[in-house]
Amino acid sequence: MNEHGLSEREVFSYLENAKSEDTDYYRVLSSMCTHPHKIAVEAHRLFIEANLGDLGLFAGAHRLEQEVVRMLGELLHAPSIDFPSRDSCKSSVCGYLTTGGTESNIQAVRGMKNLVTSGRKGLKKGLKGTPNIVIPESAHFSFDKVADMMGIEVRRASLDSEFRVNLASVEKLINANSIGLVGIAGNTEFGQIDPIDKLSEIALENELFLHVDAAFGGFVIPFLEKPQPFDFKVPGVTSIAIDPHKMGLSTIPSGALLFRSPSFLDSLKVNTPYLTTKSQFTLTGTRSGASAAATCAVMKYLGNEGYRKNVQYCMQLTSKMVEGARKIGFEPLIEPVMNVIALKVPNSDLVREQLLNRFGWNVSITRTPRTLRLVLMPHNRPEDIELFLQDLKKVTAEI
Amino acid sequence: MNEHGLSEREVFSYLENAKSEDTDYYRVLSSMCTHPHKIAVEAHRLFIEANLGDLGLFAGAHRLEQEVVRMLGELLHAPSIDFPSRDSCKSSVCGYLTTGGTESNIQAVRGMKNLVTSGRKGLKKGLKGTPNIVIPESAHFSFDKVADMMGIEVRRASLDSEFRVNLASVEKLINANSIGLVGIAGNTEFGQIDPIDKLSEIALENELFLHVDAAFGGFVIPFLEKPQPFDFKVPGVTSIAIDPHKMGLSTIPSGALLFRSPSFLDSLKVNTPYLTTKSQFTLTGTRSGASAAATCAVMKYLGNEGYRKNVQYCMQLTSKMVEGARKIGFEPLIEPVMNVIALKVPNSDLVREQLLNRFGWNVSITRTPRTLRLVLMPHNRPEDIELFLQDLKKVTAEI
Repeated sequence: MNEHGLSEREVFSYLENAKSEDTDYYRVLSSMCTHPHKIAVEAHRLFIEANLGDLGLFAGAHRLEQEVVRMLGELLHAPSIDFPSRDSCKSSVCGYLTTGGTESNIQAVRGMKNLVTSGRKGLKKGLKGTPNIVIPESAHFSFDKVADMMGIEVRRASLDSEFRVNLASVEKLINANSIGLVGIAGNTEFGQIDPIDKLSEIALENELFLHVDAAFGGFVIPFLEKPQPFDFKVPGVTSIAIDPHKMGLSTIPSGALLFRSPSFLDSLKVNTPYLTTKSQFTLTGTRSGASAAATCAVMKYLGNEGYRKNVQYCMQLTSKMVEGARKIGFEPLIEPVMNVIALKVPNSDLVREQLLNRFGWNVSITRTPRTLRLVLMPHNRPEDIELFLQDLKKVTAEI
Repeated sequence: MNEHGLSEREVFSYLENAKSEDTDYYRVLSSMCTHPHKIAVEAHRLFIEANLGDLGLFAGAHRLEQEVVRMLGELLHAPSIDFPSRDSCKSSVCGYLTTGGTESNIQAVRGMKNLVTSGRKGLKKGLKGTPNIVIPESAHFSFDKVADMMGIEVRRASLDSEFRVNLASVEKLINANSIGLVGIAGNTEFGQIDPIDKLSEIALENELFLHVDAAFGGFVIPFLEKPQPFDFKVPGVTSIAIDPHKMGLSTIPSGALLFRSPSFLDSLKVNTPYLTTKSQFTLTGTRSGASAAATCAVMKYLGNEGYRKNVQYCMQLTSKMVEGARKIGFEPLIEPVMNVIALKVPNSDLVREQLLNRFGWNVSITRTPRTLRLVLMPHNRPEDIELFLQDLKKVTAEI
């Protein structure tokens, strides 16, 4: 750090220079994030100093957080809980706003572990060793962090031919030390939705928790023409991760974690002396009230109708992309379920590289099999699809 | 969520209403956060959509993050490392921007655990059971989260008469399964600084890691008239947590974690398919580039000189408060080391309650012993100190 500070002008010239190196989402087909809605950005600014880590000081921002949790609960059919005097959960729905899917997934698994080890969840048999969870092979890499941190074994079930979790594989991996299952509602690579209703049956039968990672799908699936069951309507689902900073069009960091029962939040509590509240169940301490306000604002502004239009738009782009790709000879790995396409293209790694280096398109690659992964987001436009397909045709013809 | 959205005007009227319930830091003497600097707020707005979880797309925001890490490294005397081709650490200093002190503390301990269990850190004796860390009793409650999550035993050393960690107690708690020590540079309750140089000797002698939690003190201690040793200048210190969103005057969420050696970051890595980078060592996935820009901006704008003035101002308020308290008969528990006062007042819990209910002052209480805890921040003004002391006199006289 310099001894003397720079002038405001010097600082902003430095920042603008860096800003010019950022991608502006033009020609980005690889990201599950997008431009936040302008209402979200304004609301974020209004609450820029609010700290949800100190609820007593920021009662207004906290009320916005609770309102978001309530609205998300409505969206995801969370059961309404009547607990007026409860410190942790003043809303009728149980949950809180996280920094994103990773924190939500970590906390969901931490809750499972704490409920089991504290004896608050009755398991058929007592644990005889390291507790484990069974997740699909397609689960996001945040579960590698869970595995690394939490002293929990993470068992990976194989996928079926449609890239949903293989139920027989899940059942085979469950043993006396299993505490929970994870299903993905909109997996990162294929946009596929695991059979949550079937996972629920397995979970209930084996007295296991079932966490649904709907970080991406949570703001997509409810607005599809034929939504698949994935939320609290499915009886075995005990927690859901949903990210407003992805298809919810809010600002970063905006994740959310909802629980079916308040015992989960209770299991995450640590005491908090020297704060205006007595305990804290969140992973982080100081938390952005600005993001809570941003999410509240955009959800109220768009309503179900606005999000439905947003999803319709992305699905139209998706259809257009698939149709165009078929015309130049490339098939999707599966018929897209949401706005993610895994496109079978020869030499996909090389194609990816050349699309970027020659034409500035950011795309990514699925792991197994290696296909071109395209996420169609609100920042993409129909004319971009046509340009992309032209460039894809050129690149693949010349490889 | 409503079927139809609200108008922009309705949304903002709803938000403004909530905003009016938030405390504006006027009469807040209990928080370690404050108004972010206006330069930070503007920079945050400029980078509102930047996602540091996808570095390839946001190369500019990433450069700002690396510049912040470099500047923090300079401030904290981090050794310069030459590793030009390294993916994880392009800066000459090793670290990254976190969501705050809690994530930094969690990741520091996770790094210790991973380095030990992977055999990359030679311990005198092999681990024979659950690894443990030794922390001061005065450590922040984030270490309760570490204990709860990480499958690590957290052993708490007692404090000496000055509320620094008792070195004999630390030594007594170290055993064959100990992997690291934690020292606090500016603890939350007393603003006290543990004897980091002595902890360093113990750490080196026992081949243990030493993490310094300077979440609050990191932007205070270097700017005090007589700074105590607490940073990488002390040879045994292996990692430091420092929070720009506290006395660094940046926006939420802005924490930072610095390591002496790149092996720490390497030990935290998980693979990241379908991103523009190959691996990720951060706790969260999607990360706020806005906060990185905000921190970079305010550090460049203020420079050492600006932060020194900020600390001088807070220390002057602290002296004024202590002098005034003495005049009405109340002594501080220890002579304040930084801008935190633990004031010995009879019936402190009742006094706290009445200060809030009758006069709107937010103060907090230390645990053992129970004293009135006052944090003097940039948002406080000299005239507020006088008003507070008048109100304190009234309240204590009438109890």
